[in-house]
Amino acid sequence: MPLRERLALWQLVRTERDGDILLEVSDAVRETLIADMDDHELLAAAREMNADDLADLASELPGDVVRELMDHLDAQQRERVRSALSYEDDQVGALMNFGMVTIREDVTLEVVLRYLRRLKELPGHTDKLFVVDYDGVLKGVLPITRLLVSDPENQVSEVMASEPVVFHPDEEACEAAQAFERYDLVSAPVVDRNSKLIGRLSIDEIVDLIREESESEVLSMAGLREEEDIFASVWRSVRNRWAWLAVNLVTAFIASRVIGLFNDTIERLVALAALMPIVAGIGGNSGNQTITMIVRAMALDQLGQGNTWRLLRKELAVSLINGLVWGSVIGAVAWGLYGNWKLGGVMVVAMTLNLLLAAFMGVVIPTTLEKLGRDPAMGASVMITAITDSGGFLIFLGLATLFLL
Amino acid sequence: MPLRERLALWQLVRTERDGDILLEVSDAVRETLIADMDDHELLAAAREMNADDLADLASELPGDVVRELMDHLDAQQRERVRSALSYEDDQVGALMNFGMVTIREDVTLEVVLRYLRRLKELPGHTDKLFVVDYDGVLKGVLPITRLLVSDPENQVSEVMASEPVVFHPDEEACEAAQAFERYDLVSAPVVDRNSKLIGRLSIDEIVDLIREESESEVLSMAGLREEEDIFASVWRSVRNRWAWLAVNLVTAFIASRVIGLFNDTIERLVALAALMPIVAGIGGNSGNQTITMIVRAMALDQLGQGNTWRLLRKELAVSLINGLVWGSVIGAVAWGLYGNWKLGGVMVVAMTLNLLLAAFMGVVIPTTLEKLGRDPAMGASVMITAITDSGGFLIFLGLATLFLL
Repeated sequence: MPLRERLALWQLVRTERDGDILLEVSDAVRETLIADMDDHELLAAAREMNADDLADLASELPGDVVRELMDHLDAQQRERVRSALSYEDDQVGALMNFGMVTIREDVTLEVVLRYLRRLKELPGHTDKLFVVDYDGVLKGVLPITRLLVSDPENQVSEVMASEPVVFHPDEEACEAAQAFERYDLVSAPVVDRNSKLIGRLSIDEIVDLIREESESEVLSMAGLREEEDIFASVWRSVRNRWAWLAVNLVTAFIASRVIGLFNDTIERLVALAALMPIVAGIGGNSGNQTITMIVRAMALDQLGQGNTWRLLRKELAVSLINGLVWGSVIGAVAWGLYGNWKLGGVMVVAMTLNLLLAAFMGVVIPTTLEKLGRDPAMGASVMITAITDSGGFLIFLGLATLFLL
Repeated sequence: MPLRERLALWQLVRTERDGDILLEVSDAVRETLIADMDDHELLAAAREMNADDLADLASELPGDVVRELMDHLDAQQRERVRSALSYEDDQVGALMNFGMVTIREDVTLEVVLRYLRRLKELPGHTDKLFVVDYDGVLKGVLPITRLLVSDPENQVSEVMASEPVVFHPDEEACEAAQAFERYDLVSAPVVDRNSKLIGRLSIDEIVDLIREESESEVLSMAGLREEEDIFASVWRSVRNRWAWLAVNLVTAFIASRVIGLFNDTIERLVALAALMPIVAGIGGNSGNQTITMIVRAMALDQLGQGNTWRLLRKELAVSLINGLVWGSVIGAVAWGLYGNWKLGGVMVVAMTLNLLLAAFMGVVIPTTLEKLGRDPAMGASVMITAITDSGGFLIFLGLATLFLL
């Protein structure tokens, strides 16, 4: 919904519901809504929230509001919000919630069933109960489906899974997401270094994370800094796209200077000016295909260290074939058009070499970025295009200078 | 894992486990494994599977094997496999499984608890029981957390949720995925037109679907036909990338012919050859940013019909600002380099016009593709680049011919 209509609607929403809505909308939309509220409204909206929700929201609220809200919480809640805020966005600790139902291992299932009935309601996504000892150390988990099918006379310790999948708050969230997929989890315990239960991950947050991950991959490949509300203000959008356009401008300028080196050659054979973008363009397209593949494979953790070399060989082979085949097609066309078979030959060789360059850099850029601990998708498309442009012009015009003049 | 090692390892796996493994691996890997097995091995692997798993796999098995397998199933199972196979890959019917526990509404929770205990095991991701009447018509769902916290003396009909979220087998799977996210579902009933319960969707399949969707979006934007096993054979990879490279070749050739129109202009002012890729390149980059944004917004269903015009205006405004600002920067540089202020002026105007073209087509291409019922991401990147290349050359060289000669 466009900004003006959105804010008009927002004014009509009853204050009690503000909090729920803020938690549901996308980051970009939330920001516009929060910007529209004064501290008083924000306080009213946030006061209804529990520690989980507050922790999710706190980083986007003004400092004053957060401090005031913290004063209203009890000690345990305050501790939870504080601990959740202490982790990076991409860590398990920032994602965990506190909707845990804990039981002891030395009671019977009958006792557990009676205990649950007293609770009146279980937290969302409760598919297992957490078995802890008196110090809060996790001893196992009791899936509630197992609780339902087992003899109520049994002890918890006999029925529980004693070696469940656990996470640590400083683990990377995307690894947790992969584990959720691999083991088909709905919820899982988060424990500290001493195996003490401190929180829980649940599938709803994991699903959000998977969406966000794939979104940020797509955006960063295209050189967008962050998620953009499609009805964001023009000014905001300009800033979001600014950075990579500037990078692109520099790389395009470099490519232009490469062409500038060959002014004399082009002056003597102007057909080169028309043909050079073909060499550069196909290289860019092919390089983008390679880099997209590899960034995906990295995101899915399919690429081990030892495999890079083998992968490089394969990508080079694919490029060699594509270069020879499509290079020959376009080389033949160029021969026919300009009646110069040497020009056709230079096209074939230049296309092949540029595709090999694209394959090489398409593997090297993301693997190097990853080794440096950076996001391998980051502007990948802009970078590979820069290389295949400058490289393509250099190879094609260089070969032309050597063989055609 | 590279193909040779993968198949060597595959040979070492015990036959009983083949089926489970086939179900877990990615589509591209599965294909290589199935290709390596003879009919006899496939039969042995698939015979252990239930109807769900078989339905997932059947479309990839040889016809003979499927027929033979069907003979081994009982009537209900056969019916289920057949019905699952009758839906398109992107429909709910192809995704549903049959791990449903059904109960009647006129019994007490105590009876339900005793019934469950007799089952020994519940299907994975059972977070609710399905309440049906004697004709199999869905009356409601009983979340098992509610079963646990309610008084066992209550009737099912008093405790159940009588208007649950339901899906139909011919609904689009990606809409179901959005509903799962919106309502934080773990499982949900699938009913036919008469409200008869025919299957169940569960979150594990939805998570897989979300992954696949975002994957195919990334791949198709880059012009890759399908998921590619990163260690696929060179030949397979060539075929996967062939189609869009060929399209790209045609579009690059068109751009080349556009330049060819201005041979005389370039011969008289060779600086144009060096500057024209800047205009085209920045346009391509900016167009890719726009189209990426819009394809994402469409995938998340944020783009209504009435909004297209407003969105277009915004994108045009962003491009106007970027064009004037960055165009001026590069125009000033061109002036400095070539000592020709008119050349600088042509750069500013050409950059701005090409960015406006990029914004216009970046909105129009995906919205039109969607209106035509096509995948809006399909080769989006190749198409927008084609337009900003040809358009950029035409605009820049055309203006240069008019004002510089």
